[in-house]
Amino acid sequence: MDETTSAYIAGFLDGDGSIMLQIKPRSDVRYGFRITSTICLYQDSSHAGELHWIRNQLDTGYVSQRNDGMSELRLDGHERVANVLQQLKPYIRFKRDQVEWMLEALAKLDAAQTPNEFLGVCLLADKIAEANYTSRRKNTASSVEKEFRDKGWLSP
Amino acid sequence: MDETTSAYIAGFLDGDGSIMLQIKPRSDVRYGFRITSTICLYQDSSHAGELHWIRNQLDTGYVSQRNDGMSELRLDGHERVANVLQQLKPYIRFKRDQVEWMLEALAKLDAAQTPNEFLGVCLLADKIAEANYTSRRKNTASSVEKEFRDKGWLSP
Repeated sequence: MDETTSAYIAGFLDGDGSIMLQIKPRSDVRYGFRITSTICLYQDSSHAGELHWIRNQLDTGYVSQRNDGMSELRLDGHERVANVLQQLKPYIRFKRDQVEWMLEALAKLDAAQTPNEFLGVCLLADKIAEANYTSRRKNTASSVEKEFRDKGWLSP
Repeated sequence: MDETTSAYIAGFLDGDGSIMLQIKPRSDVRYGFRITSTICLYQDSSHAGELHWIRNQLDTGYVSQRNDGMSELRLDGHERVANVLQQLKPYIRFKRDQVEWMLEALAKLDAAQTPNEFLGVCLLADKIAEANYTSRRKNTASSVEKEFRDKGWLSP
């Protein structure tokens, strides 16, 4: 991707996109919670063609049409998300904190060996969500911490 | 402005901005209507600092805080708007039609010598508004045309 394309997509993401790190309960994983990472870009469906162009520049993601006349380009997967954010990072301005926390979280997640290290990633998810003004999250670092305490995984 | 800055601002405008050409009744101008041109970028007020950064890159515009928690960077004036759009144009994707109609309108407006030429600019204002999905406009090319006919300025 050339640098003006990266800068353009960074501007678009700053203007009308979101970066999410979510905590989802899953019984089949080590700590009982899965972390998912997502980048989303939105636009009126009449311009969906241009979302496909962005998708092709990034060489990853899915464009889908929602019921409310909007389309979205969604990228997920820790490696894909980290890779795209690394490319956009030099040009991101409004969401710079979110991008840095996200990259920090994804690196920590890879290395997380203890409940405490996993909780550290959840705390970064909280910071990202706060910066996104998302208030109705079911699973936060403190709900994960409570569950870890109940299970005796954390020292008192 | 370097090219990655132009590309970034183009992406931001595509994602969360608008380009407007408006028709306003004024008794003190030749055809009874004034045409105003505006570029607006929006963002949550907590990030107003970055709107100031964009303003400084463009070296024009005003940042103001609205009552609904949003801030906006507003540029107006035909020459300023044309100048900024010329710089962003190579990178604009989603709003490419609006940018081309706007530049065409501003060039025509400069040269408009007859009511018919003025109406041609109003028709471009209609196309831009349609592309913006703005439906509640008071003054459109057809309302201007009606008034010009009432005044006998157009051949029947």
